[in-house]
Amino acid sequence: MERRMNARPRLVVIGGDAAGMSAASQARRQRGTEDLEILALERGPHTSYSACGIPYLVGRTVSSSDDLVSRDPATFRDEFGIDVRTGTDVEAIDLARRTVTARGSDGEAREEPFDQLMIATGAVPVRPDLPGMDAPGVFGVQTLSDGIAVREFVDNEKPETAVVVGGGYIGLEMAEAFVQRGMRVHLVEAADEPMGTLDRDMGRIVRDAVAGMGVEVHMREPVTGIETAPGGRVRAVATESTRYAADIVVLGMGVRPNSDLARAAGIEVGPTGGIAVDARMRTSAEGVWAAGDCVQSLHRVSTAPVAIALGTHANKQGRVAGTNIGGGYARFGGVLGTAISKVCGLEVARTGLNETEAERAGFEFETEVLKSTTRAGYYPGATEMTTKILAERRSRRLLGAQIVGWENAAKRIDVLATALWNSMSVEDIAAMDLGYAPPFSPVWDPVLITARKLAERM
Amino acid sequence: MERRMNARPRLVVIGGDAAGMSAASQARRQRGTEDLEILALERGPHTSYSACGIPYLVGRTVSSSDDLVSRDPATFRDEFGIDVRTGTDVEAIDLARRTVTARGSDGEAREEPFDQLMIATGAVPVRPDLPGMDAPGVFGVQTLSDGIAVREFVDNEKPETAVVVGGGYIGLEMAEAFVQRGMRVHLVEAADEPMGTLDRDMGRIVRDAVAGMGVEVHMREPVTGIETAPGGRVRAVATESTRYAADIVVLGMGVRPNSDLARAAGIEVGPTGGIAVDARMRTSAEGVWAAGDCVQSLHRVSTAPVAIALGTHANKQGRVAGTNIGGGYARFGGVLGTAISKVCGLEVARTGLNETEAERAGFEFETEVLKSTTRAGYYPGATEMTTKILAERRSRRLLGAQIVGWENAAKRIDVLATALWNSMSVEDIAAMDLGYAPPFSPVWDPVLITARKLAERM
Repeated sequence: MERRMNARPRLVVIGGDAAGMSAASQARRQRGTEDLEILALERGPHTSYSACGIPYLVGRTVSSSDDLVSRDPATFRDEFGIDVRTGTDVEAIDLARRTVTARGSDGEAREEPFDQLMIATGAVPVRPDLPGMDAPGVFGVQTLSDGIAVREFVDNEKPETAVVVGGGYIGLEMAEAFVQRGMRVHLVEAADEPMGTLDRDMGRIVRDAVAGMGVEVHMREPVTGIETAPGGRVRAVATESTRYAADIVVLGMGVRPNSDLARAAGIEVGPTGGIAVDARMRTSAEGVWAAGDCVQSLHRVSTAPVAIALGTHANKQGRVAGTNIGGGYARFGGVLGTAISKVCGLEVARTGLNETEAERAGFEFETEVLKSTTRAGYYPGATEMTTKILAERRSRRLLGAQIVGWENAAKRIDVLATALWNSMSVEDIAAMDLGYAPPFSPVWDPVLITARKLAERM
Repeated sequence: MERRMNARPRLVVIGGDAAGMSAASQARRQRGTEDLEILALERGPHTSYSACGIPYLVGRTVSSSDDLVSRDPATFRDEFGIDVRTGTDVEAIDLARRTVTARGSDGEAREEPFDQLMIATGAVPVRPDLPGMDAPGVFGVQTLSDGIAVREFVDNEKPETAVVVGGGYIGLEMAEAFVQRGMRVHLVEAADEPMGTLDRDMGRIVRDAVAGMGVEVHMREPVTGIETAPGGRVRAVATESTRYAADIVVLGMGVRPNSDLARAAGIEVGPTGGIAVDARMRTSAEGVWAAGDCVQSLHRVSTAPVAIALGTHANKQGRVAGTNIGGGYARFGGVLGTAISKVCGLEVARTGLNETEAERAGFEFETEVLKSTTRAGYYPGATEMTTKILAERRSRRLLGAQIVGWENAAKRIDVLATALWNSMSVEDIAAMDLGYAPPFSPVWDPVLITARKLAERM
């Protein structure tokens, strides 16, 4: 606490990835170095990286981990006047004294004072409390360091068999990466179908496709433990019904908001486990902001809070927080739960509410599922895609959409996301003037036909 | 006029392509054969074909012209109970007597009575009145018969040099087809840049790309005539400054609504030259409907009537007309001028108003042009795309957008078309929750960044 009373205001940022560094950079754009001191504290060695790129690093689609880093600490220091301390773990926030306790890579804890505090602590992977989960050869894929560790393990240890636990986006993308590295791959999932954010009928298409690409897919098999070899290294994954030999295990069981630090400081945490923030990204504590995977967001369709860990939200929310911290005005508009992924050529996307979510939110709704081609049927490369939409019974308003298909299928979800953002009815969607040419679409775009068919039925 | 007084009502459809046959089929879905007789009169031999597929037929991307026909006359007869007479030219409409004069393939003219009349006469290519325009070897590409003629000419005559007159979508697609067939290709255009529906700065990118693919592109060269060889066949295209030897010439100079028949009958034709219709596709004459390339439509952004020849509108309008003819209720929501094309891998798209159109409509506006990549920069296959948007100065409402890029660029126009349909502001667009994963997009989608940058500047 050797700080002078007259020093320029100080922003402390906890977490140096998308949300934290977006906020820091945006605050800097608003306020010069003479007006605002910015200190960013990051537990790991990396800043502003693409966690979504990790499967491509492991699969060697991307050659170096450097490619996944958009700005390193030196860039922030030199170009933004932001002091980034990596290897620094924040252990506590003291709202009364307006300090954080930060333990540096030298092992020493320091009190760092702040005038404004930005919490961007991200998410933590779900790791069930089962025997062997911490054995060597068992990896999470949350941080870039995790990704580098997996890549090095595969490069050096040359595992022959992989078990991926969890059939969500990350799990499937990692399964693909391991297939690309020539490994035998088991995908083990407790639910009925992979991609739990899709409805079962759509998840089924994904399962069949992934199985067709050589991944051995095992559904309805909760993991009961990890078996280790003498010496401690992983040897197999045990499920309720059987066991799968494994030279490497990756956990892709989802994440939860990392809000413990905030909660311990007395900052409000919402029912989702994410830090409660308003549209300006203010927490319940004066001068304390939060953004990214550690917060909960308003879902525009259900109007309920949700915790969705995604780089796009983290970037936007960080930018909103930074603008407001810097004295500007910005609001975050909420989320739709849009997500997209590509697994061995299979494209999967969703937005809004799926059937389970719509039921939980109390909607009465109808659904329509349409199989179509991605291009004019006669045009080379036309492949099958399946579009599913949900609309509210009374208002005919779109509630959600899912797409599974091959080339040029999934990014069409953006049209439905834009329609959802505007609370469009299925009639209005069917009427829209979308781009048509044989290489891009049948003359009736699949999105439009699906909406039209549902509109006609309602 | 041998018709019985008590016969079921009769719908006569003039024109058997997208608009006419959509209307006929939709009227049939509403009314069974016992309720409504449907007679469709088509000048050519084909019904319901994809004119947009003609360049791919010529370039041998599509092997047979049959692939471009979605339903042939026999299908309409057998499955829809629609009597289609091909090779039948309608020469006059008599509103007082409620008949049309139809000359069949036997050369005889018959009076065909109607209770309801559907006009779907399409568009006619612009053919300047210059010497040699009708010489053998000079082709339009409006109908499937035109396309088949070009394909046969190329297959049989093996022309070595082609001149394409007109640098719009069709002209560029035909230029590509001829390049694929191994020909030397000149593209001759009177304007400064190809793709006149884009702004010049975007057209310039298209020109450079097309030139890079081996098409010899000649701008600002109005055609002055066609030179013929002894025997009458085409030999060269003369422009104001030079001449280009040609074994085949294709005219891609645009089209105009084919509204002469309607005008001669006293049906109102609008300032665009298209038949005036309301949102239910009713013309000024009781019980007479029109749809497709022969009508004018409401442009949702300029709120002025426009004549845009496009299969998507023809299909939608025909369906609206058919629903209303059959006693149902449907309205056509207007157009945005969305268009998309692919030329030798270069993708081009536009929606809404370009600068010239926005000025003509009296808008004050700002523009933003952004170069970005189509995927995360580190992901293989990431290529350059350029996005341009226009927004109204006071309201910040989006007015139009243009995209030029390589793989996975152009269909993003649909997001902007959906935003335009909903009168979104650039701030609102920038806030949207679109799909992100490295194979599909940078973490900030190019559409969102472009909107954000313009929002910040305004």
